[in-house]
Amino acid sequence: MDNHLFKSSRSVSKWPFHKVLVANRGEIAVRIIRTCRLLGIKTVAVYSAADKTALHVKLADEAVCIGPASASKSYLNISAIIVAAKITGAGAIHPGYGFLSESPEFAAACEKNGLKLIGPSSQVIALLGDKEQARLTMAAAGLPVVKGSTQVITKVADALDQASQLGYPVMLKASAGGGGKGMRIVHSPAEMKANFPVAQEEAMASFSSKEMYLEQYLPNPRHIEVQIVADRYGNVTALGERDCTIQARHQKVIEEAPAAVLSDDVRAEMLKRTETAVSRLHYEGAGTIEFLYNRDGSFYFMEMNTRIQVEHPITELITGTDLVELQLRIAAGDELSKHHIKTRGFALECRVTALTPGKITGLHLPSGQGVRVDTALYQGYVVPGNYDGMIAKIIVYGDRRQQVLQQMQALVGETVIKGIKTNLEMLAQILQEPDFQRLTTNVNWLDKLEKRGPNANS
Amino acid sequence: MDNHLFKSSRSVSKWPFHKVLVANRGEIAVRIIRTCRLLGIKTVAVYSAADKTALHVKLADEAVCIGPASASKSYLNISAIIVAAKITGAGAIHPGYGFLSESPEFAAACEKNGLKLIGPSSQVIALLGDKEQARLTMAAAGLPVVKGSTQVITKVADALDQASQLGYPVMLKASAGGGGKGMRIVHSPAEMKANFPVAQEEAMASFSSKEMYLEQYLPNPRHIEVQIVADRYGNVTALGERDCTIQARHQKVIEEAPAAVLSDDVRAEMLKRTETAVSRLHYEGAGTIEFLYNRDGSFYFMEMNTRIQVEHPITELITGTDLVELQLRIAAGDELSKHHIKTRGFALECRVTALTPGKITGLHLPSGQGVRVDTALYQGYVVPGNYDGMIAKIIVYGDRRQQVLQQMQALVGETVIKGIKTNLEMLAQILQEPDFQRLTTNVNWLDKLEKRGPNANS
Repeated sequence: MDNHLFKSSRSVSKWPFHKVLVANRGEIAVRIIRTCRLLGIKTVAVYSAADKTALHVKLADEAVCIGPASASKSYLNISAIIVAAKITGAGAIHPGYGFLSESPEFAAACEKNGLKLIGPSSQVIALLGDKEQARLTMAAAGLPVVKGSTQVITKVADALDQASQLGYPVMLKASAGGGGKGMRIVHSPAEMKANFPVAQEEAMASFSSKEMYLEQYLPNPRHIEVQIVADRYGNVTALGERDCTIQARHQKVIEEAPAAVLSDDVRAEMLKRTETAVSRLHYEGAGTIEFLYNRDGSFYFMEMNTRIQVEHPITELITGTDLVELQLRIAAGDELSKHHIKTRGFALECRVTALTPGKITGLHLPSGQGVRVDTALYQGYVVPGNYDGMIAKIIVYGDRRQQVLQQMQALVGETVIKGIKTNLEMLAQILQEPDFQRLTTNVNWLDKLEKRGPNANS
Repeated sequence: MDNHLFKSSRSVSKWPFHKVLVANRGEIAVRIIRTCRLLGIKTVAVYSAADKTALHVKLADEAVCIGPASASKSYLNISAIIVAAKITGAGAIHPGYGFLSESPEFAAACEKNGLKLIGPSSQVIALLGDKEQARLTMAAAGLPVVKGSTQVITKVADALDQASQLGYPVMLKASAGGGGKGMRIVHSPAEMKANFPVAQEEAMASFSSKEMYLEQYLPNPRHIEVQIVADRYGNVTALGERDCTIQARHQKVIEEAPAAVLSDDVRAEMLKRTETAVSRLHYEGAGTIEFLYNRDGSFYFMEMNTRIQVEHPITELITGTDLVELQLRIAAGDELSKHHIKTRGFALECRVTALTPGKITGLHLPSGQGVRVDTALYQGYVVPGNYDGMIAKIIVYGDRRQQVLQQMQALVGETVIKGIKTNLEMLAQILQEPDFQRLTTNVNWLDKLEKRGPNANS
């Protein structure tokens, strides 16, 4: 489809940065390198000692080792990455997702060193990275938010106070949080006393911050998020929404786009209000605004991710865009046209996760009409145990949801990954569940399913 | 895109055949098996002794060995294939392309044994397989044909007579031919005397027929073909056209869709006249009508292929259809609706060919937005030397031709196939040629390029 997003076209010779350092690994590094190649931009891979033979290292034009296997000493090592950019002459850095992609310190270090970080400024990352600040900012910008604590909480006594004002159950969260770390549902003062120290400890370990906050707990919402792109001139365009309700312990497992549960009216309102809110933020780049959605059509701002999302391909498929290209062009100063984006068809993504590290001794990935697999796997590759286990995304696009679900069952069934344990069987199971097919799920559904076993009611 | 081709939808339980035997190997066998899986139809693979470890054997529900490596004793062995269908209880046979896909004898054997061959009847295959008969039939049905001999030629004296009536240069062809075998451009009586016996010998060796015919030779045409589907009720729908001008020794190498050289008027006329002509044939299934196209907008019927084409994926991409599904549904008796097909975007296919047999010791295939690779390769697979060398099709889809060409350059550049020699370098070279990019090519262009070396004029 022909979604002309920019006011002008860009020729290859006119990039302000001719070389981009990709500060990530795995499938997202490979995916970023591919778009750079396509646009005629040179790439620099960085890698830890555990990733010497990784695919992103092979595909990039240059590669620099930035430290030992431990992420904190390599992919989270700001100074090593800045130095790698300097010595290779990279003019920009693409942070991918995870690792340093939402680190205001990293963004500030790039700014200080004259490197263009593909994404918003360090101030905006800092503002939206603080969950409590983000909630207040977005409420002020016109998005509905659930009631929550109005001050940062560091002590259990304050948590008990605020919770009794909000009314139980409440959601206890780390201010600097993400990915489910430091998060607890709390039903009573007794549970608060028990859970607060544990959650805070998790928050400290994961984000080096003991600041917590509370939100009113919505019992069984769906997770629906809006993809936006924004340029430095204040133009914001929503690229439709995604339904990421299928989660295991707050980690997304299966995502779909568009969100079939939304009425046209609610969808239009959600996209419009998101565009308006983001246009007040001095935001630049791609970003995702996550909402909790209730059956009655109400939705509440949860958080904003200031980077490309794992599940971005399903948006690319229904909008016919390349989000990494959009990121690069926005970073290069291109201006978005005021163009309304139409989505077309239906896309589904399954995240394939390694449950054990090890060598891939056999590999067969599906292919075919409408099928896309984003991965950095190859036969003979050794999946290291040091990083996130997401090793492949099986993505499929078609006309209608029912047909796409059926095709995904065939694709997951065809996939063979030998040598390690994966979640392929679980994915196959979810795809067959009537609740999943009928959209009668919620963000807690998969955790409950795993507890009670599949098809317990049927 | 949502091209509703059929009058009614079909539920999985209602297939008249629950099991399909795939009478082919390589990527097309894999591709057929994938669609069958998706539709809930069981599959039977057949294989030669050389293909014991082939991917289509691994993916099918059942597999039957039908003979030794030599194709004439396995994939061309009609009785072995019929027996395999009988013992496995397959109700239908998909012949793919090549091998027995256009054999009237095979079609007749299927009919005699109560097996549904996915495609037209043995009579229609026989009629259209005879190039001379096909020309006369299509001329009568209203398609423009180049002037040609009106009788079958078996002797050089008759060839000389007919050629002097047509005027040199003429194209000498095998009546039962295809794939360039038995084909010669002849410029003079002396060349006819020299070439006729050789071409006839080739025709005998390839098609077991010494019948030849002559056509007026068009010096530098493009090859443009129309994809149609037709049901048993007389409905015919054209699924756009393809430009397959890039050929080496009459073998297609790169194909694109739609054909960018066509004006909207000429395209509309070509599609309309093709639909009308095919509707007079009692044709059933998918088929391709090949035309020679001249710069002045004139086009001439060349031949009709009564099977799925190697390059069918580019049509699938611009029409949002699954041609194997269409074949199966038509074979099952579904009725096409009178729906005009819209194409969208631009698709390009590069055929990757093995120049030597051998073991695949390293394999990296491209992926990403709009990318599809149809292949039966896997790391460790041994490419046998017994069959056609086409081992993978790299296919890419996007909005505009220019952008898609650029992406294909990146994809071919990314592809790694270790252990055998391939044509990847040649593909990369063609993609960079200004003539290819500007569409100033013709069916002889690549042969000339290979003779004079790349970029000789630049």
